[in-house]
Amino acid sequence: MTTNKHTIYYTLTDEAPSLATCSLLPIVRAFTSAAGIDVKITDISLAGRVLAAFPENLTDEQKVEDGLAFLGDLTQDPDANIVKLPNISASIPQLKGCISELQSQGYNIPNFPEAPSTDEDKEIRARYSKILGSAVNPVLREGNSDRRAPAAVKAFARKFPHSMGAWSKASRTHADYMRNGDFFSSEQSITMPEAGDVRIEFVSKDGQVEVKKELSLEKGEILDSMRMSCKALRDFFEESLQDAKETGVMWSLHVKATMMKVSHPIVFGHAVTVFYKELFDKYGDLFKELGVNPNNGIGSVYDKIADLPRSKREEIEEAIHACHEHRPELAMVDSVKGITNLHVPSDVIVDASMPAMIRNSGKMWGPDGRPKDTKAVMPESTYARIYQDMINFCKTNGAFDPTTMGSVPNVGLMAKKAEEYGSHDKTFETEEGTMRVVAADGTVLMQHEVEAGDIWRACQTKDEPVRDWVKLAVNRARQSNTPAVFWLDQERAHDLELTKKVKEYLKEHDTEGLDITIKSYSQAIRFSMDRMIRGKDTISVTGNVLRDYLTDLFPIMELGTSAKMLSIVPMLKGGGMYETGAGGSAPKHVQQVEEENHLRWDSLGEFLALAVSLEDMGIKQGNKRAAILAKTLDAATGKLLENNKSPSRKTGELDNRGSHFYLGMYWAQETAAQTEDPELAAHFAGLAKTLTENEEKIIGELAACQGKPADLDGYYHAKRETVKRVMRPSATLNAALAAVNPS
Amino acid sequence: MTTNKHTIYYTLTDEAPSLATCSLLPIVRAFTSAAGIDVKITDISLAGRVLAAFPENLTDEQKVEDGLAFLGDLTQDPDANIVKLPNISASIPQLKGCISELQSQGYNIPNFPEAPSTDEDKEIRARYSKILGSAVNPVLREGNSDRRAPAAVKAFARKFPHSMGAWSKASRTHADYMRNGDFFSSEQSITMPEAGDVRIEFVSKDGQVEVKKELSLEKGEILDSMRMSCKALRDFFEESLQDAKETGVMWSLHVKATMMKVSHPIVFGHAVTVFYKELFDKYGDLFKELGVNPNNGIGSVYDKIADLPRSKREEIEEAIHACHEHRPELAMVDSVKGITNLHVPSDVIVDASMPAMIRNSGKMWGPDGRPKDTKAVMPESTYARIYQDMINFCKTNGAFDPTTMGSVPNVGLMAKKAEEYGSHDKTFETEEGTMRVVAADGTVLMQHEVEAGDIWRACQTKDEPVRDWVKLAVNRARQSNTPAVFWLDQERAHDLELTKKVKEYLKEHDTEGLDITIKSYSQAIRFSMDRMIRGKDTISVTGNVLRDYLTDLFPIMELGTSAKMLSIVPMLKGGGMYETGAGGSAPKHVQQVEEENHLRWDSLGEFLALAVSLEDMGIKQGNKRAAILAKTLDAATGKLLENNKSPSRKTGELDNRGSHFYLGMYWAQETAAQTEDPELAAHFAGLAKTLTENEEKIIGELAACQGKPADLDGYYHAKRETVKRVMRPSATLNAALAAVNPS
Repeated sequence: MTTNKHTIYYTLTDEAPSLATCSLLPIVRAFTSAAGIDVKITDISLAGRVLAAFPENLTDEQKVEDGLAFLGDLTQDPDANIVKLPNISASIPQLKGCISELQSQGYNIPNFPEAPSTDEDKEIRARYSKILGSAVNPVLREGNSDRRAPAAVKAFARKFPHSMGAWSKASRTHADYMRNGDFFSSEQSITMPEAGDVRIEFVSKDGQVEVKKELSLEKGEILDSMRMSCKALRDFFEESLQDAKETGVMWSLHVKATMMKVSHPIVFGHAVTVFYKELFDKYGDLFKELGVNPNNGIGSVYDKIADLPRSKREEIEEAIHACHEHRPELAMVDSVKGITNLHVPSDVIVDASMPAMIRNSGKMWGPDGRPKDTKAVMPESTYARIYQDMINFCKTNGAFDPTTMGSVPNVGLMAKKAEEYGSHDKTFETEEGTMRVVAADGTVLMQHEVEAGDIWRACQTKDEPVRDWVKLAVNRARQSNTPAVFWLDQERAHDLELTKKVKEYLKEHDTEGLDITIKSYSQAIRFSMDRMIRGKDTISVTGNVLRDYLTDLFPIMELGTSAKMLSIVPMLKGGGMYETGAGGSAPKHVQQVEEENHLRWDSLGEFLALAVSLEDMGIKQGNKRAAILAKTLDAATGKLLENNKSPSRKTGELDNRGSHFYLGMYWAQETAAQTEDPELAAHFAGLAKTLTENEEKIIGELAACQGKPADLDGYYHAKRETVKRVMRPSATLNAALAAVNPS
Repeated sequence: MTTNKHTIYYTLTDEAPSLATCSLLPIVRAFTSAAGIDVKITDISLAGRVLAAFPENLTDEQKVEDGLAFLGDLTQDPDANIVKLPNISASIPQLKGCISELQSQGYNIPNFPEAPSTDEDKEIRARYSKILGSAVNPVLREGNSDRRAPAAVKAFARKFPHSMGAWSKASRTHADYMRNGDFFSSEQSITMPEAGDVRIEFVSKDGQVEVKKELSLEKGEILDSMRMSCKALRDFFEESLQDAKETGVMWSLHVKATMMKVSHPIVFGHAVTVFYKELFDKYGDLFKELGVNPNNGIGSVYDKIADLPRSKREEIEEAIHACHEHRPELAMVDSVKGITNLHVPSDVIVDASMPAMIRNSGKMWGPDGRPKDTKAVMPESTYARIYQDMINFCKTNGAFDPTTMGSVPNVGLMAKKAEEYGSHDKTFETEEGTMRVVAADGTVLMQHEVEAGDIWRACQTKDEPVRDWVKLAVNRARQSNTPAVFWLDQERAHDLELTKKVKEYLKEHDTEGLDITIKSYSQAIRFSMDRMIRGKDTISVTGNVLRDYLTDLFPIMELGTSAKMLSIVPMLKGGGMYETGAGGSAPKHVQQVEEENHLRWDSLGEFLALAVSLEDMGIKQGNKRAAILAKTLDAATGKLLENNKSPSRKTGELDNRGSHFYLGMYWAQETAAQTEDPELAAHFAGLAKTLTENEEKIIGELAACQGKPADLDGYYHAKRETVKRVMRPSATLNAALAAVNPS
């Protein structure tokens, strides 16, 4: 294996980010080449992953490297340095679209087998299954998570604050969650004293034992098990609906059916069948026949009745409307189109929808298009309580003020599919009986009595990631000189096990002078908010779910978006992955390019990630020029924000390419101006001069191409040469970059 | 001075408690005499204090000992053991009533000079001034405060819970308070490095210096100064009224005009003149002429216009009603009589009214007699925030459950008029200029720019009480094996000074194994409530105001009343005072005796106080029998509660006297049953037998007297012999007691 000490692996992904890469990379390379750093493209796009899955179907010329597998191996190299851009988490329709595009381009890959029956089809389906959904992050996230708002972004938000809806002290909005019968109230947890195998078993009422899953656990691994009662869940929904009706607030459901892909669709389905109880009572048999699946939302009913005779369809639609009569108003996803919160499970993702509601004065949109106070229903209480705490806080102290508020960075336990986020293959909808976890020697380690329809799940948390997470927290507290709070709820079985480890592993570090505490979620968020409104920062050190939730929640309050956060994955093996923002790969942006050749994608995330990537290379490899370039890049990003040179949404104005030009110009100016390395300064003096003098000309060239359609020769697998031509239209800029980095 | 090692000083006070004493004391003495303890009556009644103030006007036979002066001296004796019952804090009308009663009884005491002009009248007025208001507690409370719910009372509340109104998650109720311009936001604080004199000065705009007050401060004494802006206060009232109007909640004001007798009436007056702005704009001159004082409430307007011609009066009354049109609904004190929250300042005392509201689902009573969500206005933010925290907590977790909730006992800084509660003589309504505190050498220690109408005040906190308070907290944490939280807000100048002392004095104690922390008020109350709903106790260690507030707030949630709390004042000099409940001296109860000879006064507070008084004597004097009697008395009290032998409100049922009988019977049974001291057991076997066997007879004798009027031969100064006859009507009981304690 060649050395990776001087290489940054930059991922080629999909849609808008991949277009932006084509414009940005030549600029980046002009700088990194001066530090002896090679920036290598690694293709992990959906098309690239499809092609890599079927090498035997392709000609030698068509064959591609398996970029994801390569990066997967690379995560084990202490020198790994990966800049990761957002990519497609493919749904089946997206995958099928990609396949047919590749086939049309002459790639002989097989169709996606919807219902595989032959062994061959099953094999094909298995290969495609590995490509579906969130397939990239689990391979690459071989470490925990370190997320924070970069100084330049924070300064920008303070100077140009996003809007925040005022909060009324008399607001009726609140979070509602189960008080019993949920996962929280049934959680059990053990830590393995030695490595060993365990079985997850279901024992039926008549004593039949069925092995649902076998697991090999490591020494020190934490295993949790928990149960959500179907009856308690449905009772809770009914009560919350009646309470909302009586008190006159809207009702809205907030789950995360995409991420919690096994358990949350079931929860969502119960919400639908409780809300529309009379409908499902009356048409249950017909719906079964039609293949209605309430777990896919009330939208599933509309879909499946579409082909019924008009009179029958209208009868059912009336029955749907009749249900609304005695129910509270439902929060809307799209009040114009009449799309409610119960329409499609993926429409309301708790970690995005709750911060949006809190920013919007605690209101969601009603059927009449007006913002209204809401009962925000999150059945599982474990994490829901933090939202109620923030709501209470806003009622008491008013909306957060972006111009003065402090920051809540996060150090999150994530590696090796920790906690709930790795639980999908250990989640079951049960029959009546007993779910239990049994050791190899037959000892029952944990068990729950369950009823038909209950959801039971087990979660794993390996020891090595916990130890690394504690180390990361201490390092972050030291480097930022900021109090760090471990969010660990002493009422939770899992957190009690985790707390023991945290206390143990904290002893491995010098924590002298650091303010590191352990607090329950409620106390942690209140403590952090109390500090935040006084301009003080507090590091949140959390498990995997809270990592996900908080790195939307606080950034959306502080910065108006979570896309501007620095997101670093310090790998367990010592390497680093630098993720560039969140928010997906933006298909709508590609449409705008195809129609008007304007790319509104904001590469701020890439700028920020690249700076930490370079900074890290400076530290780990002793590359002083990398360190200098990191600093000058950060300064350039700051200037870019301050001068408002981010892409505009409007065609004709500055777009992604123009923004890249300004980054290059500021970066060259900053590097030329630094005095630490005069030779490096001299090297960039020319570029700085050329770009500064030709600013108007280059911006003109970049603007000239806008306003007419641009053909990219493909969507999932656009031609690189075509994209390059489209994304690099300024001859003056291209020449200036070539002069610095002739290779 | 004779030794006080074997004496309990039992205060003779006023009204219902003094009647109850007459019945209870013979029972108590029957027991204490067996332990060699003398229970001595000390008269601190209003009448007693008046007589003691004018010895030269009385015949030798009429002369009385100055009980309060005696007890004041006694507080300095390490052996002091005082049981203190509620007494009258006399208003001027009460004092005048007392004077005329004494004169009618042949005591040649002078009239109360309303407007003294002669030197003689001034001298008389000065003597009476010392008797007015809260005159007893400042003399006797020569220590800090230790209050908690006794085990028997807590057990009773768990078994027979008081009603708690349910809380809606969508409740609109909230606390509202100033965000700037109040005392909190302007507080300054210094600690005296050495003893020294300081001056409080006002400097007018033209440089004139006026000395408002001179103080001699001790070494280590904390002095605070703070200012409430009149303009900010009035703006806040206006905004809060408009917000309440817009959001459709009621508006209610919660101050403590009785205790904060200088500053809060002014605050109350501003509320009245802002709410009724148009009224005061239009009739201001007339009101001035008539002597209307808005600080006495809108009731003052009604009083003063009563003698105007009907047409004028009606015009003004219409103008009052017109103001209500564009204002939010006002919370009512008595909706039947139309008495609002702004009628009389003493009608809504924050520490009683807020817990009552929280128990009542967060609602107050509206003009239509219905309970409604309310904006509870407490202008000064320092302590108001704890109520908002509790409101948020109830919205989130529902009403507290007396059957499962834990307890929040209090260790309060109180000695030597600590903090705001000693600030009355250092509180000023200012003109425009500068208020400042100047050292003897002319150094300006603190200063505030002030405007006309601002309220400025200084507060003192002496070092010795702080040191004692810390000791008390550590002892209480150790004895109860319960976490203790110092409520100290690091955003407050005063609390920062106090925190330094707390940290210093904590070092003087062995705190190994104790959980003692310092938290802001918000974090402290949330922490305590989080524990409380899980059945866990948390000691609150607070300053003087929070002592007062919390020892109503938590007991009212836990026990339904604060009257059942144990209230101990461990004196700085080593003695102890045991206060019996709260709730005043209950004038209405006396009326019921006079009309129907039924005394509903509950002596539970006396039973509890007496038990700790005895316990303390057991410990301090090594009096083993006192220790045993303390234990058997507590057991008897528990039995009494469990068997529901507390006084009924209804004439004909068990009253105070019957309840005393049961206490005596249970106490005798418990003492006879204990095995620690067989001789003592034998001594009480007879009494136990007699009382048990004659239960029906005695209860009959006690009941027989009820239902007809009882003449007490006086109200403030009833004849002791008459009272004794009324309060001890059971010959059987009297004989049984005499048999044990023939003296």
